[in-house]
Amino acid sequence: MASKVKLNDFNSIRVPAEDLQKQLTAIFKAVGTPADDSEIAAKVLVSASVRGVDTHGVSNVVGYSISAEDGTYTIPQKTEVISESETTALVSGGNGIGLVSAYRAMEIAIEKAKKHGLGMVSIKDGHHVGMVAYYAMMALEHDMIGMSMTTAAPAVRPALGAKKMMGTNPIGFAAPAGKERDFVLDMATSTVASGKVGLARRIGVPIPAGWAVTPEGEAITDPPEGENEMWALNPLGNTREQGSHKGYGLSVMVDILCGVLSGGGFSSQLQRGENMSWVMAIDIGKFRDIEDFKAMMDDMIQELHATPPLPGEDGVLVAGDPEADAEEDRMTNGVPVENGQYAAIKARAAEVGVQVII
Amino acid sequence: MASKVKLNDFNSIRVPAEDLQKQLTAIFKAVGTPADDSEIAAKVLVSASVRGVDTHGVSNVVGYSISAEDGTYTIPQKTEVISESETTALVSGGNGIGLVSAYRAMEIAIEKAKKHGLGMVSIKDGHHVGMVAYYAMMALEHDMIGMSMTTAAPAVRPALGAKKMMGTNPIGFAAPAGKERDFVLDMATSTVASGKVGLARRIGVPIPAGWAVTPEGEAITDPPEGENEMWALNPLGNTREQGSHKGYGLSVMVDILCGVLSGGGFSSQLQRGENMSWVMAIDIGKFRDIEDFKAMMDDMIQELHATPPLPGEDGVLVAGDPEADAEEDRMTNGVPVENGQYAAIKARAAEVGVQVII
Repeated sequence: MASKVKLNDFNSIRVPAEDLQKQLTAIFKAVGTPADDSEIAAKVLVSASVRGVDTHGVSNVVGYSISAEDGTYTIPQKTEVISESETTALVSGGNGIGLVSAYRAMEIAIEKAKKHGLGMVSIKDGHHVGMVAYYAMMALEHDMIGMSMTTAAPAVRPALGAKKMMGTNPIGFAAPAGKERDFVLDMATSTVASGKVGLARRIGVPIPAGWAVTPEGEAITDPPEGENEMWALNPLGNTREQGSHKGYGLSVMVDILCGVLSGGGFSSQLQRGENMSWVMAIDIGKFRDIEDFKAMMDDMIQELHATPPLPGEDGVLVAGDPEADAEEDRMTNGVPVENGQYAAIKARAAEVGVQVII
Repeated sequence: MASKVKLNDFNSIRVPAEDLQKQLTAIFKAVGTPADDSEIAAKVLVSASVRGVDTHGVSNVVGYSISAEDGTYTIPQKTEVISESETTALVSGGNGIGLVSAYRAMEIAIEKAKKHGLGMVSIKDGHHVGMVAYYAMMALEHDMIGMSMTTAAPAVRPALGAKKMMGTNPIGFAAPAGKERDFVLDMATSTVASGKVGLARRIGVPIPAGWAVTPEGEAITDPPEGENEMWALNPLGNTREQGSHKGYGLSVMVDILCGVLSGGGFSSQLQRGENMSWVMAIDIGKFRDIEDFKAMMDDMIQELHATPPLPGEDGVLVAGDPEADAEEDRMTNGVPVENGQYAAIKARAAEVGVQVII
């Protein structure tokens, strides 16, 4: 929720979301992705951009489509159910586009939840899934609670540790409200997501002490360049005193549900770009009346919004508020795409031989 | 995992765990709790003491048995299933002893997971459940992953907020290992659990900046006395820059699963002592071979333990290590019970007319 990329009229161009959807779909198709998978991959990326999560947004079509073309991703991919029960599935993402396998896995989880109350899928042979909350949010239109996690190659040190061992291992959680906006939590289990450090480097600003450390545990404020052993992100909580074992513990929990339960491997067994994931759907109606649930969600959200803010703060937000604000703006005024990324998407479209429509 | 109560030969008395189990069971029975419920309540409290989680340990028998006697808790209690599906249940704890309703709920979740892969129970009409990880750990002997949460009356401010709105809303998560110790995460979603502030007050030491703030957002280092509006705990992450929205988001997630899904109410609707809870069991064998799962857990735990520590630190721990260390010591040498609490338990036993056996 904190410091997003600040896109403005000078550094970005507004593009209607539906044009981005068409452009990205065309690019994915041009590199051999089946039509339905191309639609899915585009939809997840456009959704991230629409919600202001630009690090996981449309610009990723360039890298993903290169990976599809050069064989890093297996295309066309098969989302294969390796084992399943009424409520659970172990799925292989077939080493294809991660967005597609996580999407298909959540479809399976939702189907199982419709029939049996709960559905859970752990996904191996996967790649980057983008904005992890997307899959949790898929549950909302079914009046379900959704949860999603993904693990990644090491970037974060354990509490008391001096070497990166876990990915930023984010957690997504979505629950439907009634009149209020849905609750959508999307958080890395590190102090910050990796993208924030990269962003600080690109725009040339220091990072706050507490985000990253040297192997000696000294705070880094000059944003480090590239992934190497000379620095690690801190787990959420940062220091022993402030609860670094909690962020660390959560990240290992993510590794267990995504990497160990699927057998795809935990963070330090993964190469960069490999990502194991996990999704769950909970049918609220199996517990209580959905309208009563949503009314209580509304009450809670209203009370949280009404909390007196700290001096100097505008007000108290609820998880998903900044993204919903971005969505309102961007669906009306177009999705800002950073100039360099805009040029890169157009160049990639031309390169794979599809019409440039953005 | 951080700073536990430091009990030693001067301030505490070692008592064998089995004697504590008998003594506590007798006290619960003497105030009208049925024999099986008394055994359960005692077992959860003794387990917390054995594992070094003394704030949630045996001394609580005094307060709980008073609540049972004075009608705050309804005894004998009925754990009633209000609605259920193959995999889910909404349970009323019958306003009885919270430890008993959470235990019974997890038994239901495990039964459902045995049959259908997953089991989930949300619990309303509940009271304090003690060490929340206990219920997650119940899954371990069934080769399952367990998860448990509980919500409580306000103690923690939202990110950017100046008033306590959420409980410390802890999360428990347990997954079985093979040769290594099981992974057991037990964490408040605040920077610290409330008990740590109370402890600092009792032993007369300052608390670190970052644990608690005034309504003006100023750090409190003199441990505050009692629950009032003059202070609030910080959510995990502490400041906006270091990710306070993450601890806040997790605590609301706990409120949703425990309070809203059950209909029992979210934190700011609860009175002190009221606690709604949530448990889940996942049958690992439905995903993959349990021995393969445990072997990968072992590999992960070994790699984490082998992480080079920060300068000045002894080594990297894994969630559950400090508690397992305490358990090894305390099962061999007896459970240290702080002198004042030891006297109070004996006095309470005499008061309710049972033999003092500790």
